Amino acid sequence: MSKYSIGLDFGSLSGRALLVDAATGEELGEAVYNYPNGFIEDKLPATGEKLPPDWTLQDPNDYIDVLGRVIPEVLQKTGVKAEDVIGIGIDFTACTVLPVMADGKAMAQLPEYRKEKHAYVKKWKHHAAQKYANRLNEIAEERGETFLARYGGKISSEWLFPKLWQILDEAPEIYAAMDRFMEATDWVVMQLTGVETRNACTAGYKAIWSKQDGYPSKDFFKALDPRLENVVEDKLVPADQIMPIGAKAGELTVEMAELTGLKAGTPVAVGNVDAHVALPAVGIKKAGQMLMIIGTSTCDIMLGDEIKMVPGMCGVVEDGVLPGFPGYEAGQSCVGDHFDWFVSNLVPPSYHEEAKAKGQSIHQLLREKAQAQKPGESGLLALDWWNGNRSVLVDADLTGMMLGMTLQTKPEEIYRALIEATAYGAREIIESFEESGLPVEELFACGGIANKDEMMMQIYADVTGREIRISASNQTVAFGSAMFGAVVAGSWRGGYDSIFDAIDVMPKIKDKVYRPNPEAQAVYELLFREYQTLHDYFGRGENNVMKRLKAIKLEANQGV
Amino acid sequence: MSKYSIGLDFGSLSGRALLVDAATGEELGEAVYNYPNGFIEDKLPATGEKLPPDWTLQDPNDYIDVLGRVIPEVLQKTGVKAEDVIGIGIDFTACTVLPVMADGKAMAQLPEYRKEKHAYVKKWKHHAAQKYANRLNEIAEERGETFLARYGGKISSEWLFPKLWQILDEAPEIYAAMDRFMEATDWVVMQLTGVETRNACTAGYKAIWSKQDGYPSKDFFKALDPRLENVVEDKLVPADQIMPIGAKAGELTVEMAELTGLKAGTPVAVGNVDAHVALPAVGIKKAGQMLMIIGTSTCDIMLGDEIKMVPGMCGVVEDGVLPGFPGYEAGQSCVGDHFDWFVSNLVPPSYHEEAKAKGQSIHQLLREKAQAQKPGESGLLALDWWNGNRSVLVDADLTGMMLGMTLQTKPEEIYRALIEATAYGAREIIESFEESGLPVEELFACGGIANKDEMMMQIYADVTGREIRISASNQTVAFGSAMFGAVVAGSWRGGYDSIFDAIDVMPKIKDKVYRPNPEAQAVYELLFREYQTLHDYFGRGENNVMKRLKAIKLEANQGV
Repeated sequence: MSKYSIGLDFGSLSGRALLVDAATGEELGEAVYNYPNGFIEDKLPATGEKLPPDWTLQDPNDYIDVLGRVIPEVLQKTGVKAEDVIGIGIDFTACTVLPVMADGKAMAQLPEYRKEKHAYVKKWKHHAAQKYANRLNEIAEERGETFLARYGGKISSEWLFPKLWQILDEAPEIYAAMDRFMEATDWVVMQLTGVETRNACTAGYKAIWSKQDGYPSKDFFKALDPRLENVVEDKLVPADQIMPIGAKAGELTVEMAELTGLKAGTPVAVGNVDAHVALPAVGIKKAGQMLMIIGTSTCDIMLGDEIKMVPGMCGVVEDGVLPGFPGYEAGQSCVGDHFDWFVSNLVPPSYHEEAKAKGQSIHQLLREKAQAQKPGESGLLALDWWNGNRSVLVDADLTGMMLGMTLQTKPEEIYRALIEATAYGAREIIESFEESGLPVEELFACGGIANKDEMMMQIYADVTGREIRISASNQTVAFGSAMFGAVVAGSWRGGYDSIFDAIDVMPKIKDKVYRPNPEAQAVYELLFREYQTLHDYFGRGENNVMKRLKAIKLEANQGV
Repeated sequence: MSKYSIGLDFGSLSGRALLVDAATGEELGEAVYNYPNGFIEDKLPATGEKLPPDWTLQDPNDYIDVLGRVIPEVLQKTGVKAEDVIGIGIDFTACTVLPVMADGKAMAQLPEYRKEKHAYVKKWKHHAAQKYANRLNEIAEERGETFLARYGGKISSEWLFPKLWQILDEAPEIYAAMDRFMEATDWVVMQLTGVETRNACTAGYKAIWSKQDGYPSKDFFKALDPRLENVVEDKLVPADQIMPIGAKAGELTVEMAELTGLKAGTPVAVGNVDAHVALPAVGIKKAGQMLMIIGTSTCDIMLGDEIKMVPGMCGVVEDGVLPGFPGYEAGQSCVGDHFDWFVSNLVPPSYHEEAKAKGQSIHQLLREKAQAQKPGESGLLALDWWNGNRSVLVDADLTGMMLGMTLQTKPEEIYRALIEATAYGAREIIESFEESGLPVEELFACGGIANKDEMMMQIYADVTGREIRISASNQTVAFGSAMFGAVVAGSWRGGYDSIFDAIDVMPKIKDKVYRPNPEAQAVYELLFREYQTLHDYFGRGENNVMKRLKAIKLEANQGV
């Protein structure tokens, strides 16, 4: 009798359930549901109030809707019986946070608060807390707070405390009225189980928590704002109650069993983050193995043996990815977005017609044309900073650069140069890890682009000089969550007693391994050196022209 | 009784006649004829022989065809009688050179030589003599030849001696068989008049001649190749027989009167060059007035009071533009070509559809959108080197660069940044003149872009901080030739006794003067400083990445 596990993956605009055979890792089926309210960015639906710039909210009811849709649908599609589902794992985009009441209801679920914009979920891409992040970084630096080093020197405006501080400052009554402030991943787990847990992954990567040092001190929070002195006790949970990834949060409640069609008592894992949960799904279980989750942007996650400080990384968290390991995170802010920008803005009609005639997407056509080029043949070189630089420069004010254009330069050459630029950016990150004493021995990749774009993966192998293995799953993230579902079930139910046991059995990697081609590698070695020179020239202060142009741009726009 | 003058303008692909009222400067009519053989670049029509890379030839018969077509046509169109045409002026693209026989026939007109590629006209853009130019420059530098300074330090492969050396080296029998080697402008004048003349403009700008120093020495030519020792006596004319611009070459022969429908004896001016002949056509007659002839590339010509050495200029020639003045030439190798490249390669279908719906050209649409932007608003900055840099860096191996792109960057922002880049390039040239002690006091512009693109001209005014006046003629070059036609007629025939007399009467300037807008100027001042820093960083050896990328590109392409 086969046993199954469900991975629930809450993305930016939809939630997904993937049903997996716990013994074999076979994917039996999936179901997706788009959040009815999507991103709330222009105005608040309840009142029509116009939202300020850079706000991105969501409605927590949408997440409950997902549970009531995708789980019944995936059971129905696969014909799997509820009693054969032995566990559930959950991941979510982070930092995605919301104020919650004492009874566990999200504040925005209560009729009296639906008119308050600060009562809603603040999505990871809500960027309106930048001034609080800036102030937090200033004060932390002045005070010599050591936690900064764990985050490459800077706390992002996307993270928990800047967002919570924004609420306190702009809507103190909402701050006062909330009982706690939670990551959506923990909140969904609480809805499923009735038990409040907080996971080490979001606490570590997004809420400045560490297993050794806990949260920042009361003195620090007081220095930010006297009203924040007791923020941890008031709105979070004590540092020692953070649970490691892979732990069991609780069991499905009767109410949720009714909503989902699963059995009450089904074990549920503590919450996790979409990128981080993907590591076990490709079989990573030791230090020196790095996973690139390649999508609109790229998230790089790697296990280490010990905690080291890597300049420009996003964070290092003990137990944050797999228990017993420090998990390192770095990232590139513009990868798929890069190519989409080009395709949306700068591809001429003749190419669109050619693609149509060949029955290809425009990306396929460009890839086909770009594939015919040899490394270095276009003479182009770009810096991949169209959306700033997340790692290793951690500078949102950097912008894109390309050089080498002639009157013969073709669109497919620019397209390939953009791909190559992201590969150089990836290598910068790898080198930053290695220079910090963390050898990057094996590369894995997952995500839509890694699955589809063989040329790009070959370029990454050639540029990094490393073999790259690709996840065989089209839903690597949801698969990772399903693995954690199988782990909290335990072996006696047909699951596993630890995530490491599951890793030995469940993951699937594609047969095709991308291996560096020595000739291409030699050319890319030369090109990467040029990239590095320009990376440092424009990115490390030798010529801050990009920042000055941004300042001029800002002033020109304000003059409107 | 009105009297008329005809300007004959031989462009890259067509010849044109413009008929002008000598007393008023009124343009009565024009006629154009495309060269039947256009550019001969792929194979020689007479034999089908494939031409090597970078060759561009023309057939001299095409120029004779022009004479037989456009002059009768313009007479017929305007109803002007042959006896009322008092003079003819001629200009030609340069350096456009051909081997000529003792009887004045072009070598390629003779049946026995039509199978020889080296017998044909070598067009200015014939770039296959680069290795001879390189060698010539090396030897000139080793020997400390002072003429180099008159040409910004470098002799171009487009000029007369590299092309002639190529013939000697690759086809010594053609070199031996030719009686002389001439600029096409002088050859056409010889066809019209039966008299051989050589003009100071092409001799000075293209054949290393100067009024003071004559040609380079026999020793120098011998150092290039012993067979070149007597090249001047063998194939050119003695240095003291070069005639100043504005002189009369001779009178129309009976044979040519028959071909053209004009009267035998009509005076013909010595040959001239298309860019240089435009100066009097906008009324320029004193030092410090610079004309920008803006087309696919831009040619900048200015009069000076005395001869100075300007780094990176194309040349300075006494009497080369107007008698009694040193004429300075500089240039930008990529202006209209820049925008055409963008429009051909990188404008998406939605823009083409919008332009079509509005009944606009795609350039008009982009200009309309770009015009709505304020200086600095896009955050973009480019180096205008898509086709190398002619002045002031004189480096064909430089390539384009753009930075400041974000995921919000729109096509019209890139389009405007390319325009702005050419304006910064123009200002670099102006500053190079001023730093060399040649103040640039007034700016004039002519050419299709100057006539049509008001936004671009305003940007040029804002970037250079100077007023710009625009030629009222759509055929400024042919108009300049017509002025010289009126001058060689003399006042007794209804023309003028000197070009300066003609300048006081004939030229027309548009009423609209482009004046710098102080606010825009202030922003462009900041942006130009950024441009300068990058111009020097990439262009003056601090980071030769563009050259290294070109070398890598060359190697990649050779590997094919």
